[in-house]
Amino acid sequence: MSPLGKLSGFMHKVQIGLIGGGTVGGGVIKALKNNGRLIASRTGVELKVSAVAVKDKSRKRSVPIAKSLLTEDWREVIANDKISVIAEVMGGTTIARRVVVAALKAGKSIVTANKALLAEHGEELFELARKHGANIYYEAAVAGGIPIIKVLRESLAANRVTRLYGIVNGTCNYILSRMKDEGAAFDDVLTDAQQLGYAEAEPSLDIDGDDAWHKTALMATLTQGFWVDPKKVHLEGIRGISQLDIQFAEVLGYTVRLLGIVKAGEGKGKKALTQIGVYPALVPNDHVLAGINGVNNAILVRGDIAGDTLYYGPGAGQDATASSVVSDLIDAALDIK
Amino acid sequence: MSPLGKLSGFMHKVQIGLIGGGTVGGGVIKALKNNGRLIASRTGVELKVSAVAVKDKSRKRSVPIAKSLLTEDWREVIANDKISVIAEVMGGTTIARRVVVAALKAGKSIVTANKALLAEHGEELFELARKHGANIYYEAAVAGGIPIIKVLRESLAANRVTRLYGIVNGTCNYILSRMKDEGAAFDDVLTDAQQLGYAEAEPSLDIDGDDAWHKTALMATLTQGFWVDPKKVHLEGIRGISQLDIQFAEVLGYTVRLLGIVKAGEGKGKKALTQIGVYPALVPNDHVLAGINGVNNAILVRGDIAGDTLYYGPGAGQDATASSVVSDLIDAALDIK
Repeated sequence: MSPLGKLSGFMHKVQIGLIGGGTVGGGVIKALKNNGRLIASRTGVELKVSAVAVKDKSRKRSVPIAKSLLTEDWREVIANDKISVIAEVMGGTTIARRVVVAALKAGKSIVTANKALLAEHGEELFELARKHGANIYYEAAVAGGIPIIKVLRESLAANRVTRLYGIVNGTCNYILSRMKDEGAAFDDVLTDAQQLGYAEAEPSLDIDGDDAWHKTALMATLTQGFWVDPKKVHLEGIRGISQLDIQFAEVLGYTVRLLGIVKAGEGKGKKALTQIGVYPALVPNDHVLAGINGVNNAILVRGDIAGDTLYYGPGAGQDATASSVVSDLIDAALDIK
Repeated sequence: MSPLGKLSGFMHKVQIGLIGGGTVGGGVIKALKNNGRLIASRTGVELKVSAVAVKDKSRKRSVPIAKSLLTEDWREVIANDKISVIAEVMGGTTIARRVVVAALKAGKSIVTANKALLAEHGEELFELARKHGANIYYEAAVAGGIPIIKVLRESLAANRVTRLYGIVNGTCNYILSRMKDEGAAFDDVLTDAQQLGYAEAEPSLDIDGDDAWHKTALMATLTQGFWVDPKKVHLEGIRGISQLDIQFAEVLGYTVRLLGIVKAGEGKGKKALTQIGVYPALVPNDHVLAGINGVNNAILVRGDIAGDTLYYGPGAGQDATASSVVSDLIDAALDIK
């Protein structure tokens, strides 16, 4: 037996339905095409994408999808008896919510990269999953290719997490890094980031902090053990950060980073007055988070037993996100087995 | 349902036998005493240490163990029908091997922090586990509190790992860091490390690289999918590193770090000519591994899909190691369930 996988035995084939055939969906198809056999030999699970629901079947795609798999009716994918796991990779919170609710009601486990959906409707969705004996996997919802969800959910399960500091928005970190390193103005770097594809044409989800806010609320929920209402989380983006702020910080020995912060209070549960916030923070120059540059993400977690551990890597991108989605698909398949 | 755990349902009580009541065993008992209820509420699993085998029952211990749990006969612990998981935390490769073999033959899963045992006898032990329907969990065997085993085994399961660079011996990293930062001589820093408890009185396991070598062989096996014979891994410790070496490196823009290195070749399986080695390497000063100082560990993993991710934290110590052992105990308990 290889020490790689769990006990393997027979090969176990699991059929997957993708809802969404865009960047993340394409990444998943590519990853399974390239490494599907390796995954099967490691885990004893053969993952097969059996249907892909898309908005427009005729659209040209950067990763080709066989026409026989495509449908414009997501309900058909969920209704397919052979499909046991649904990967929701469409984004948004309206139709995506309907998709997830329908899948869970059908007793099918969900893999999703949708931080907004889980931060806003997680409590309802996890309750629905419990009721129908399904599960929700969301490694890709926070920090792209960094496996922070499994780390918090399983690897650090013996720990009370007393502090968490996360750089979880690559766009903001790219902008702040370049403002510091080159003395560039906020607007100029934002324009560059848009041209390089690091920021959207409408950049407010990133630079006003909403993206980091959803991720931080999810990590707070996961580590503190109660549902965090994102509306109660203090939020401040980086739109107001000027070159002068960066320079003042530098003179004082600090680097400006947009951090998602979770500080557990003393006591238990809601009484503990846990502090949760997302805001541009002054990080001492010799702190490891001050050295995280560019579009990367990093999360520092303080556990009462493990001490400080840090997780660093690409926080976004087609392949990094697909790596996490596929690891969730493997877990979902093994849990079915 | 909390998003923290897997589907919980009923509380599930799992009895554990510890073989070894020293530093790691004491850490496990302390962790379960402090956070056992939290773990139960998160995971639905109540972990109970029901017996602890030690060499000498009368010895004074830094973490007290109830006398009723102690025994000097490890076979008694394995034979106990109520105990379903055995944590081997005694170290060594002679009696520890007998313990693990006996437990696996009894169909009981093993949790171990014993890198030497797995690197030298892993192939036999994993085959035995497979045969008897048991499992071997070994998060604490590499990099203490950093969950690198689960990351490689599960989170990056979709990836072909093409490169792995690990600082996995805290003692060596402490010595090399101080030699660089203070211009100190090897022998002086080693003496300090011994006085601080970072190095043993007989330091060769650390400074001659054996410890890093065992860990690297395990990570190579895990990522490359075939058993790596440690004897075939190039090994060079840091005993020969002088202050002059450090200074020459610095002039050229490099930092000396003892690295465990795995480079996957082209092709598949053994034919791929994977390069595996442990040696003092020149790391460019602006590389993230050059900035890992003191007794910490860090592992940089390049996956063909996820890209570069890095995992950093305490590589040793009672509590950090216990955090990993307990996370394995939780996994073992959930797998039984």
